Amino acid sequence: MTLYNHEYWMAKAIQLAQKGLYTTHPNPRVGCVLVKDQNIIGQGFHAKAGEGHAEVNALADAKQQDVVGATVYVTLEPCSHQGKTPPCADALIKAGVACVVYGMQDPNPEVSGRGLKKIQQAGIEVIGPILEADCEALNPGFIKRMREGLPYVRVKLAMSLDGRTAMESGESQWITGPDARLDVQRLRAQSDAIVTGIGSVLADNPSMTVRIDNKDQDIDPKEVRQPLRVIMDTALSIVPEAKILYPTKQAWLFSVEEEVEAEHLEALSKKGVTVRFSPRGDDGRLDLLDAMEQLADAGINEVLLESGAELAGGFLQAGLIDEIIVYMAPKLLGSSARPLFTLPLESMDEAVELTLKSVRQVGQDVRLIYLPTYLEEDN
Amino acid sequence: MTLYNHEYWMAKAIQLAQKGLYTTHPNPRVGCVLVKDQNIIGQGFHAKAGEGHAEVNALADAKQQDVVGATVYVTLEPCSHQGKTPPCADALIKAGVACVVYGMQDPNPEVSGRGLKKIQQAGIEVIGPILEADCEALNPGFIKRMREGLPYVRVKLAMSLDGRTAMESGESQWITGPDARLDVQRLRAQSDAIVTGIGSVLADNPSMTVRIDNKDQDIDPKEVRQPLRVIMDTALSIVPEAKILYPTKQAWLFSVEEEVEAEHLEALSKKGVTVRFSPRGDDGRLDLLDAMEQLADAGINEVLLESGAELAGGFLQAGLIDEIIVYMAPKLLGSSARPLFTLPLESMDEAVELTLKSVRQVGQDVRLIYLPTYLEEDN
Repeated sequence: MTLYNHEYWMAKAIQLAQKGLYTTHPNPRVGCVLVKDQNIIGQGFHAKAGEGHAEVNALADAKQQDVVGATVYVTLEPCSHQGKTPPCADALIKAGVACVVYGMQDPNPEVSGRGLKKIQQAGIEVIGPILEADCEALNPGFIKRMREGLPYVRVKLAMSLDGRTAMESGESQWITGPDARLDVQRLRAQSDAIVTGIGSVLADNPSMTVRIDNKDQDIDPKEVRQPLRVIMDTALSIVPEAKILYPTKQAWLFSVEEEVEAEHLEALSKKGVTVRFSPRGDDGRLDLLDAMEQLADAGINEVLLESGAELAGGFLQAGLIDEIIVYMAPKLLGSSARPLFTLPLESMDEAVELTLKSVRQVGQDVRLIYLPTYLEEDN
Repeated sequence: MTLYNHEYWMAKAIQLAQKGLYTTHPNPRVGCVLVKDQNIIGQGFHAKAGEGHAEVNALADAKQQDVVGATVYVTLEPCSHQGKTPPCADALIKAGVACVVYGMQDPNPEVSGRGLKKIQQAGIEVIGPILEADCEALNPGFIKRMREGLPYVRVKLAMSLDGRTAMESGESQWITGPDARLDVQRLRAQSDAIVTGIGSVLADNPSMTVRIDNKDQDIDPKEVRQPLRVIMDTALSIVPEAKILYPTKQAWLFSVEEEVEAEHLEALSKKGVTVRFSPRGDDGRLDLLDAMEQLADAGINEVLLESGAELAGGFLQAGLIDEIIVYMAPKLLGSSARPLFTLPLESMDEAVELTLKSVRQVGQDVRLIYLPTYLEEDN
């Protein structure tokens, strides 16, 4: 009999958790396997808010008598509080498992460690964290929301080799190829909200919905949940016909109260669009930090920012971007074309430092993922 | 006994040819293996102009009696003319080989096929081309010079993620990391000439020499030949102290005769610097095509262009760039920083299309190699 280590089984649990990539919102993605005598006797993952947690699904998957004395591998600390479903810690204790191996503690500082303590006090061995970084990578948004009260923001940009997103005139359609565009659809599908600026809305009239067809092997189109569409629109200049507003139930606008015409606000509200107010920031523009806090309060874990250089630059300068995803097309748009980020810097020591996380060819384009390294003062 | 195919032995010959990467100038890199009864009985490569060709070196490496009836694998068609050394075709015939397998024909249209014909007429079987694209990749510069009378031009650029090479002020030192800089030294070492513009010379006073130390596992510093240093300097504005001029024997300047002060020209010539004249092109600037033709006439196969956006843009617009090599640093220099290419384009259909040839992480930087797709009219 081959003896597998904790990492082996935790990797299985992580694979299960990934099945919830597009559906668990606003909950975290969690996977769980039950192991006895080096065999999996039950497995489960969390699929959807309101439905069973990973641990409960794994227990239900196993034969009840087998569970006694089993080891539980779960990517996230079992919950100890009554939510929409009963606490998982209690369910595991009741089932008579011998050992719980966890991937990471609950990121909510107020409950972190409680589930593990409860299990330990019931005489069950607790081991972990195991593959902590990989378990954390399942839920960057959920973790950031719990720890910092902010969503995890990815900015997606499509540019030419010379770092340009559009011609000076704004002309830009189809910079990147079909593979890159499909990749963006997956990014959208795993996001809880797509954020854009009023400039992009007025210029391109995008719908910003997730379009996945049956040809995509990775996602079942039936599983796709449409993310919230959020428009940064300081003066509420959006036109009621803008595609991005429909269906209106999932459209939010952020504006500055003093700049909004009452009549326009009322018309939009009547349609069912949510209009939120944020104060003006120090730079006179809408306070993006406040807007992101409001999104986190509403349960938004992961935000995909798809905007022009101006808003992307604003997010970057506010220290709100966690990940920069660039699709680089094999062409040169020239030196008068539009920049990637509007970011007026004067000397090299102001340059924004990044860390390269991944580089990969996607069709004829190159996908680059970077993490910004903000200076302490920016945070 | 394992039976290997022609591709197998040709790959061995290509590996041998690569040993001449830094040294064969102005000759091509060529490798040769002699095979009998599925064994290599002799091998050789061309190392240096004036020394033995690959075929002759391989014959010398084998025992004379073994060569009779052997098969010759050679990456380039054996020469049929008397050069600094006697024709290889004659040497192979005289040695009594049974078969010659070649990688590619001689790229010189005036002699292409002659060596093979001579061998065939001597009753020796001729097979090929085998692994033609790989054999061609050994000598992009030699081939282009023979076929088009122009060198193969690589432009090397170091930029930030947002496509900027320097701050608006010109401040730029050390955008990329040490691994990328070492990679550039290797690129320089395999080039016959480094070309730059007077702007870069006056701003940075670079020496543009190859600096390889013993820590580099890939090149023996003793093997390194310093490439010709070429400065595009329309009005001959270079200062006599510019580091790039020394040693003067390997420094060339291109200028426009009418703009040159006689006194300055004389002073430079006295130092041993070569000053060449090119006419003005249609755009009023120095005719880069003419300058490249002059370099090809002087035996320059591969050019590395290391310049600012202005000259790089000029080369690109003249259709003279064969390969764009970009080292992309993990930072953002902002939207007022200097562009990659000065290239004023107005609409998307003017965009320069590229083909991605390779993408690779080099330290914390990303190295991207693209081939421009010029429109017919540009060539």
